[in-house]
Amino acid sequence: MATVAWTGGGIRIIDQSRLPDEEVWLVLRSAEEVAEAITSMRVRGAPAIGAAAAMGLALAVSSGRDVDEVAAMLTATRPTAVNLEWAIHRVAGAARSGGATAAVAEAVAIADEDVRVNRALGQMGSSLLSDGSHVLTHCNAGALATVDYGTALGVVRAAVASGKRVRVWVGETRPVLQGARLTSWELRRDRIPVTVVADTAVGALVASGRVGCVVVGADRVAANGDVANKIGTYTLAVLATRHRVPFYVAAPTSTIDLATPDGRTIVIEERPADEVRRLRGATVTPDDVEVWNPAFDVTPAELVTAIVTEVGVVTAPFADGLRSAVSRASDARGAVVPLP
Amino acid sequence: MATVAWTGGGIRIIDQSRLPDEEVWLVLRSAEEVAEAITSMRVRGAPAIGAAAAMGLALAVSSGRDVDEVAAMLTATRPTAVNLEWAIHRVAGAARSGGATAAVAEAVAIADEDVRVNRALGQMGSSLLSDGSHVLTHCNAGALATVDYGTALGVVRAAVASGKRVRVWVGETRPVLQGARLTSWELRRDRIPVTVVADTAVGALVASGRVGCVVVGADRVAANGDVANKIGTYTLAVLATRHRVPFYVAAPTSTIDLATPDGRTIVIEERPADEVRRLRGATVTPDDVEVWNPAFDVTPAELVTAIVTEVGVVTAPFADGLRSAVSRASDARGAVVPLP
Repeated sequence: MATVAWTGGGIRIIDQSRLPDEEVWLVLRSAEEVAEAITSMRVRGAPAIGAAAAMGLALAVSSGRDVDEVAAMLTATRPTAVNLEWAIHRVAGAARSGGATAAVAEAVAIADEDVRVNRALGQMGSSLLSDGSHVLTHCNAGALATVDYGTALGVVRAAVASGKRVRVWVGETRPVLQGARLTSWELRRDRIPVTVVADTAVGALVASGRVGCVVVGADRVAANGDVANKIGTYTLAVLATRHRVPFYVAAPTSTIDLATPDGRTIVIEERPADEVRRLRGATVTPDDVEVWNPAFDVTPAELVTAIVTEVGVVTAPFADGLRSAVSRASDARGAVVPLP
Repeated sequence: MATVAWTGGGIRIIDQSRLPDEEVWLVLRSAEEVAEAITSMRVRGAPAIGAAAAMGLALAVSSGRDVDEVAAMLTATRPTAVNLEWAIHRVAGAARSGGATAAVAEAVAIADEDVRVNRALGQMGSSLLSDGSHVLTHCNAGALATVDYGTALGVVRAAVASGKRVRVWVGETRPVLQGARLTSWELRRDRIPVTVVADTAVGALVASGRVGCVVVGADRVAANGDVANKIGTYTLAVLATRHRVPFYVAAPTSTIDLATPDGRTIVIEERPADEVRRLRGATVTPDDVEVWNPAFDVTPAELVTAIVTEVGVVTAPFADGLRSAVSRASDARGAVVPLP
């Protein structure tokens, strides 16, 4: 299931806002349509929005538009995931040096790489799961969040592919319900057992002893190993630490941001209050109640057992390991493309 | 706002399942209607279901029905809150010794006491809040959860009444959304500032330093100070402990169960999966996804800073203080009514 694909004249995505009720595929035909799809979370997940934005920029360049202007517009859609600026930076660089053809090739390469990277990351992480593991994940770091296969769920898929039995637990992940709607949907397609709990139940779940490890994705990993990820991740890390449950972050090197020293400087997106006030049409709060709706939180590196990348599993102290992983991944791609 | 009231021929309640969309008042005219209202959470909150069940039993006794049979039926509606069995035990005892007249008088006394007890508890707790406090609460331990005034929100109300400025934060409290629907609704009626967050945001909220203390209610406090309360409470206690934020439990002595040595033996109700799968008509998960839906969790006494009762604030070690509080409260009522 390639959830983000280049069609030549557009970008084919599955509309994640309609799942699980309806499986609707859209073809986005302009950078503006891509921007709208990212902002409204029709396409979401750090690697997936990176690939979609890359293709959106390539599309714009192909129709003769100004690279910098479109790149800025796409970069502004969401602030927290670093993959977005990383992917846009790569396509903009290709466009400047090789024009539309190079931009399209780079965007398609980013998407192809993402699938290979996730499969490699999954292999690296699968050794952390034993047969019979119960894995608690959060939000959706699966095929839907990437171009295919997934990061946290890629680890699960690789473990299952190697013959291990794995059960996944996931909190519903309010306000947008990616755990309840998306992770359950894609795991059931793969016949991997999954149980959904309310976000309030994760404490009792971890305390019950049923969770063998936590595996989550990431939107941005700072140079020191602090991890920005979907709101609620920090709570899982605190619970895991208290109950001595390993807390793993599945993050391709494209998610590691060496230019950000630690989590304090990561911009945390705040989303509309109505995401909390209403839920898919149903009333949740009185109409105009005050709401605080941050989309991400930061888990300090001290709570992270290991960060799983496509080139290896990094443990504390993270700074050296992350720098080395980024360097090896760039070498493997045959070109170092640093962020500005 | 008396949310549970004896009308002579029935029990008047506000239908909490319809809030905040509609303010619907119902008159329940049989013990079976009371049982249905408790099971379906039209009336919820440990003190409120205690008072409603007491009146339901008094109503049944008044129409000549068998005390033990109706008491057993009402006790079976929900297993976790001890107030339910405590209140039913009191009315059954009165019925056996003094018939219908005594049963009705006892049920009405339980409701009247609840309001007095909550006001006294609020006074005891208000000294814990300073001017400008930001209080994080959970679920609804307010007027709606009691006969009037509330326990955790009674503490807030008493502090506000004494001239302190208090802001309340509350997680929406999935699956039934008592925080989003009920706590916000009743605090806004009282013009007390309230901000709702998704349950996933409580970690980031506590980590941000904005929460001065946590105040929650309780469904059953064990003899050692372990606290059963709405699912999600344990997570707040773990977060509060990590961030050195005081964690207070507002529990009238009717919620203290000296016959339960610790939290391990408290029966935790599991509620229907559809509470998680759907939300007020909206789809949350694929139709038949597996769900675990515990309604309560247990916070170990070691994470509790203090338990606020109507006769005083109890701190660790809790065993002696809780026993003493129950004894003093019984003396104050003029009669010791132990559970069997």
